[in-house]
Amino acid sequence: MKFCSNCATEIEVKIPEGDSLPRHTCPACDTIYYHNPKIVAGCLPVYGDKVLLCKRAIEPRVGYWTLPAGYMENGESTEEAALRETLEEANATVNLLSLYTLTSITHVNQVQFIYLADLPEPKFSSSSESLEVKLFSEEEIPWDDLAFKTIHNALKFYFSDRKEGQFPLREVTLRGN
Amino acid sequence: MKFCSNCATEIEVKIPEGDSLPRHTCPACDTIYYHNPKIVAGCLPVYGDKVLLCKRAIEPRVGYWTLPAGYMENGESTEEAALRETLEEANATVNLLSLYTLTSITHVNQVQFIYLADLPEPKFSSSSESLEVKLFSEEEIPWDDLAFKTIHNALKFYFSDRKEGQFPLREVTLRGN
Repeated sequence: MKFCSNCATEIEVKIPEGDSLPRHTCPACDTIYYHNPKIVAGCLPVYGDKVLLCKRAIEPRVGYWTLPAGYMENGESTEEAALRETLEEANATVNLLSLYTLTSITHVNQVQFIYLADLPEPKFSSSSESLEVKLFSEEEIPWDDLAFKTIHNALKFYFSDRKEGQFPLREVTLRGN
Repeated sequence: MKFCSNCATEIEVKIPEGDSLPRHTCPACDTIYYHNPKIVAGCLPVYGDKVLLCKRAIEPRVGYWTLPAGYMENGESTEEAALRETLEEANATVNLLSLYTLTSITHVNQVQFIYLADLPEPKFSSSSESLEVKLFSEEEIPWDDLAFKTIHNALKFYFSDRKEGQFPLREVTLRGN
């Protein structure tokens, strides 16, 4: 951030009065710019004994497999964001069952919500965001070709919890790759 | 947002190629600005049969009572944000027990995390953010002077769940005041 988006003056980085952290501030119009973590919302869609994964068509990690998920938009709930992303990335309509993994990823300033979801019919397809969309049994999961640690964790939790038949909320903090 | 914070050119609002929503975009350097919901994190501190509330010293809702909570910063986890805010607003150190209320507040683009917390000692005090900090029994809660609907909900859930001795995650979406 170099210029004030309100008045185009060059930005200064300083600790505002009453604050404790350096912020991007405008010396002309006094606007203070706060940068906060973003929410990524998605789901783990289950059909029978299989889960739905998407092969990423977009950087980062093009060609690696992920769960359908993406940035939450203004004006929506976390559930709506998860449903929208699943539709956009996998052309799939799911029913969200419960919030399943909640991960603070401190080094990239993200908080990721993954809902456990029921895919009622095996209807899905690739999209502008996914090169391929496919159902995988536990034995078929491409563990070495997963896009992100959070996705690895969610799948590990799922196949473990499935044996118990219970899917408690899993809270994780990741502090590096 | 009027000017590009990268090159100070006047911003245009348009749907970028491959996107579906209008974004603030720079016609000169092609930077796209995304605006996403922010996370508010805090806790419901319990000491014996009482809960700790803070009387707000900062707008909005100065003079009204709230739970200690505030914007999550980059580089921290949701738990760390809740602990920091409790220290800043109430000068209190708590132990977080579990995530308790999770509220999407769509009209203000926020997702609020409130953790159930144990206040091990009755040590707390007012701060630059709180005019007064005080323990309240259920009978003493100033229901008509609470700052926000989310705080009202969290306290209602708490006193109801306390009768059962169980505090499941409560997920709510608020779409207006």
